[in-house]
Amino acid sequence: MAAAATSGAGSRYERGLAVLHETSGRRGAAVVESLRDIAPDLGRFVVEFAYGDVYSRAGLDLRERELSTVAALAAQGDAAPQLDFHIDAALHVGVRPQEVVEALIHIVPFMGFPRALNAVGVARKVFEDRGVTFEPPVMKDPRDRYLRGTQKLVEIDGQHGLEVIESLKDIAPDLGRFVVEFTFGDVYHRPWLSPRRRQLVTVAALTAFGDVAPQLRVHIGAALNVGLSPAQVVETLIHVVPYAGFPRVLNAIGVAREVFEQRGVHAH
Amino acid sequence: MAAAATSGAGSRYERGLAVLHETSGRRGAAVVESLRDIAPDLGRFVVEFAYGDVYSRAGLDLRERELSTVAALAAQGDAAPQLDFHIDAALHVGVRPQEVVEALIHIVPFMGFPRALNAVGVARKVFEDRGVTFEPPVMKDPRDRYLRGTQKLVEIDGQHGLEVIESLKDIAPDLGRFVVEFTFGDVYHRPWLSPRRRQLVTVAALTAFGDVAPQLRVHIGAALNVGLSPAQVVETLIHVVPYAGFPRVLNAIGVAREVFEQRGVHAH
Amino acid sequence: MAAAATSGAGSRYERGLAVLHETSGRRGAAVVESLRDIAPDLGRFVVEFAYGDVYSRAGLDLRERELSTVAALAAQGDAAPQLDFHIDAALHVGVRPQEVVEALIHIVPFMGFPRALNAVGVARKVFEDRGVTFEPPVMKDPRDRYLRGTQKLVEIDGQHGLEVIESLKDIAPDLGRFVVEFTFGDVYHRPWLSPRRRQLVTVAALTAFGDVAPQLRVHIGAALNVGLSPAQVVETLIHVVPYAGFPRVLNAIGVAREVFEQRGVHAH
Repeated sequence: MAAAATSGAGSRYERGLAVLHETSGRRGAAVVESLRDIAPDLGRFVVEFAYGDVYSRAGLDLRERELSTVAALAAQGDAAPQLDFHIDAALHVGVRPQEVVEALIHIVPFMGFPRALNAVGVARKVFEDRGVTFEPPVMKDPRDRYLRGTQKLVEIDGQHGLEVIESLKDIAPDLGRFVVEFTFGDVYHRPWLSPRRRQLVTVAALTAFGDVAPQLRVHIGAALNVGLSPAQVVETLIHVVPYAGFPRVLNAIGVAREVFEQRGVHAH
Repeated sequence: MAAAATSGAGSRYERGLAVLHETSGRRGAAVVESLRDIAPDLGRFVVEFAYGDVYSRAGLDLRERELSTVAALAAQGDAAPQLDFHIDAALHVGVRPQEVVEALIHIVPFMGFPRALNAVGVARKVFEDRGVTFEPPVMKDPRDRYLRGTQKLVEIDGQHGLEVIESLKDIAPDLGRFVVEFTFGDVYHRPWLSPRRRQLVTVAALTAFGDVAPQLRVHIGAALNVGLSPAQVVETLIHVVPYAGFPRVLNAIGVAREVFEQRGVHAH
Repeated sequence: MAAAATSGAGSRYERGLAVLHETSGRRGAAVVESLRDIAPDLGRFVVEFAYGDVYSRAGLDLRERELSTVAALAAQGDAAPQLDFHIDAALHVGVRPQEVVEALIHIVPFMGFPRALNAVGVARKVFEDRGVTFEPPVMKDPRDRYLRGTQKLVEIDGQHGLEVIESLKDIAPDLGRFVVEFTFGDVYHRPWLSPRRRQLVTVAALTAFGDVAPQLRVHIGAALNVGLSPAQVVETLIHVVPYAGFPRVLNAIGVAREVFEQRGVHAH
């Protein structure tokens, strides 16, 4: 394995450059070029590692990868230039503008409004730069928020979700109600991002955000519930490495292992 | 409960809009308006959830809520536009300029100087925009820093605080001395923010910052020590949801539950 | 100890001002001056605590301290003004430009590309402001990346590192391979930053980043492996307090204590 994987450094660079170009057109080469003056090897690592090693892997398509990237960057904060680059790349590979916005609305219950609002500001600029215009949809759902939220919570998180709500009854029952009504009744019910993509976004964002292992556990389970395979969950975690580094991903892999063992499933 | 809580979506929006206007005047409506082009529902969620559900709750007054918000945003980082908005709102609802500055000085021992310095830069701009001028006080305290720090540590944290200092004697005694002298001798002794508000600020900031559960445990206990009720502690945690999301708050609730159980107190 | 440490507040300020001037020339006084309008005591705390208490300590020289600061700030994110200040200070005390760049490349495997890329942008501006020009080296290493990575992994992390890779075989073997090839084969092998300084940078960055305790454990062990003393490890952690606050450092001290106990070594 090692020999095959490490032979031909040239081919890693060439493969990375091809994927970089496929995902971001001429902007990709510009990033690498901009590093030549003081950190040329850093530009090479972007091409070889982020694109040659990670983006070129099977398991997730480029739209799923760019949505995961946007989620990880928005969750992490302080990455506006990269968010600009990757929202542009997401559109370039065929993610719809509304899906980008939806992924950013999706992170509100997980990271709060400020991260989402600032990322929407970046998205607005990218849309303007690309001349993208669209009519943003407005959700109308006359059903009771608590009832539709409970239904969605069970559908996505299964029994674990209900247990979290139940466990809050003694100390903060309204907080449990807000999780049901807002996270699941308002946000998860929105039809403009598929349940699978919502879970890709959730897992990537929680991994990059850090210090939320219990929620990562529930949502890796939820990812399996909505049809992602264990291998795709692992692939999503590996995809986050270039954006949040190995340590948080290694810890998330430990959480995934526990979930897989409990369910008796395997990543490969 | 669910029925009452979820009936009348219109009333949540209207209630939220009224609280938003009460806390931030015309700037609140401008934020919602600015989202109409690409994410109108995100603006609606700000109004309905952050203001209609959270800010309109009893348990903390608007000055306490805005101070907690400022602390959570400053601690979290990368939220300068929101910090600008909420420092302005804090002044709007009657927080004194010196209290805002004091809350930012207060987070130095918990998150370090960079977060505080950048937030002070935002505060300066807000003060200038509002034409606020004041004579910032300069602390003079001739007492020995270590002695006055130890006294304050015991007053705020009780036995737990002394145990932390004691536990450092074998490995980093000077670090324990710095906690006593700087955190408690220098910062906690400043009279321009009440002990109750200092603990609101501490709990909100630690929750938003993440990965500091042991300190959150000590400082939730300290919040009770200075006269906040268990319900007010829970309310402070719920207040952080719109700024840092549900996961970190849910984990902080778990910490609060342990503290309440140890003391035999209840949130409601 | 307490009496000696706290007597003469004037001397702490004077000592701090001298170290501040030694590390950053006239820019240091400008920071303190800029706070006089609304938060003069915050400026005093920078001088007294960050410089008078922390920077003036023995155990690490000023180049090691500034490199650790740059690493902690880059890892933490949202500290561009402070990063600008401390990259300038690092050069001022004799850190070579290539070492600064190298420290930023070093954090890629630990925190991802965005933090490093943005910090390189700050470095570029500082180099331009100071008129620093240099020919950045380009790494050429014809050896197999996996083999040279394994060799370096064992050299730095010892048995613990191999166990991490081995533990990934059942769930994400390629992730283990990337750790070996990229972190150790590509980054750790670069000769432009000494192994000791790499571990100072790693420990400071992981502490400031948060939620990576298992990796901090491995890399505190690695710091001892490359020749840092237990006291220097503790000193590096104390050095991070002004940048990331006491809580994360106190938790890192807990991790260091476990490592020291396992090895039967003492910090003093």
